Amino acid sequence: MSSLPSPFCDLTTELAHLPGIGPRSAERIALYMVQADPAAMRRLAETIVAARERIHPCQTCGALTEQQPCAICGDSRRDATRICVVEQPVDILALEKAHSFTGRYHVLGGVISPLNGVEPEDLRIENLRPRLETEPVTELILALSTSVEGDATSHYLCRRFARPGLRITRIAYGLPAGSGLEFADEITLARALEGRREL
Amino acid sequence: MSSLPSPFCDLTTELAHLPGIGPRSAERIALYMVQADPAAMRRLAETIVAARERIHPCQTCGALTEQQPCAICGDSRRDATRICVVEQPVDILALEKAHSFTGRYHVLGGVISPLNGVEPEDLRIENLRPRLETEPVTELILALSTSVEGDATSHYLCRRFARPGLRITRIAYGLPAGSGLEFADEITLARALEGRREL
Repeated sequence: MSSLPSPFCDLTTELAHLPGIGPRSAERIALYMVQADPAAMRRLAETIVAARERIHPCQTCGALTEQQPCAICGDSRRDATRICVVEQPVDILALEKAHSFTGRYHVLGGVISPLNGVEPEDLRIENLRPRLETEPVTELILALSTSVEGDATSHYLCRRFARPGLRITRIAYGLPAGSGLEFADEITLARALEGRREL
Repeated sequence: MSSLPSPFCDLTTELAHLPGIGPRSAERIALYMVQADPAAMRRLAETIVAARERIHPCQTCGALTEQQPCAICGDSRRDATRICVVEQPVDILALEKAHSFTGRYHVLGGVISPLNGVEPEDLRIENLRPRLETEPVTELILALSTSVEGDATSHYLCRRFARPGLRITRIAYGLPAGSGLEFADEITLARALEGRREL
């Protein structure tokens, strides 16, 4: 009885800890890695370490950044009266690509999900309070995912931060661009009808 | 307009080169990595480099090994009269787990697939010839995958290495253990019938 060499097994075990990588993919990636160009693998290893060491959450908004505060929080040309609340740092990139929001962001780090053990205190919710007190915020735009947890988190934030002079809004739910009615599920359609506007 | 920090983008690009990792998974893994325990990420990086540096193909059979020759090629108790030809080093582990083969192995590194640019000379096929000349081999067992390419490669090896005194066999195709007829596709069934044996 023989087995695979231990550095290979160690590698497979480590890779299987990454999100979305099961034991079979881990084995496939490890097989690729031990046969790849050694210089490319050293570069990958260095890139992982460099990214982990150089990138930190912005202490204000939670975005991934190399500087404190991040480029958006530190940009005085951005509209300081609006904060858009998102789940993950990458959501900021998606919104920035849409070129239609010029305010600042706040990253929660996820949504409230008691079934998955995520309680409000596990998210960057309390960090939002000092911002609402010190920044001239008049609108909090909730841009969370359209799931049960996303909705529950939006309602929680709304109850938590409601105060006179602060509008709390939610991005629209409806048909995605370029899609037809026949591809939309019933919940999307119900929400699209609910959110209809005068032409 | 802001963007993600460059170490993050570099990481996403590097990860997307790994097999089975698309741009979305790469982003998800990168997001996990930059927020994970820094010590765990250093350990992952070291494991990648260690595996790449310490593991090499066995110069005889092509299995992944830290020593030359590998544990199987160097084990004099193994039956030297049989060589089992497989596609990948991990296939050896699968066969060893079955505990029914006591001979040696030969790893091709893939199958012949002109459409994917894999020609016979890209595989460890020529390395098999000196083994057949110097080792007391009487049977070459082909254990390649049951695909068009696997079949074509088996036929190629058969033509290439046929000689008096050398049996060239192929592992059986048929119903997998624990499965019923109703789950088998027509090719599997045709092959299972074709390969029927006297009881």
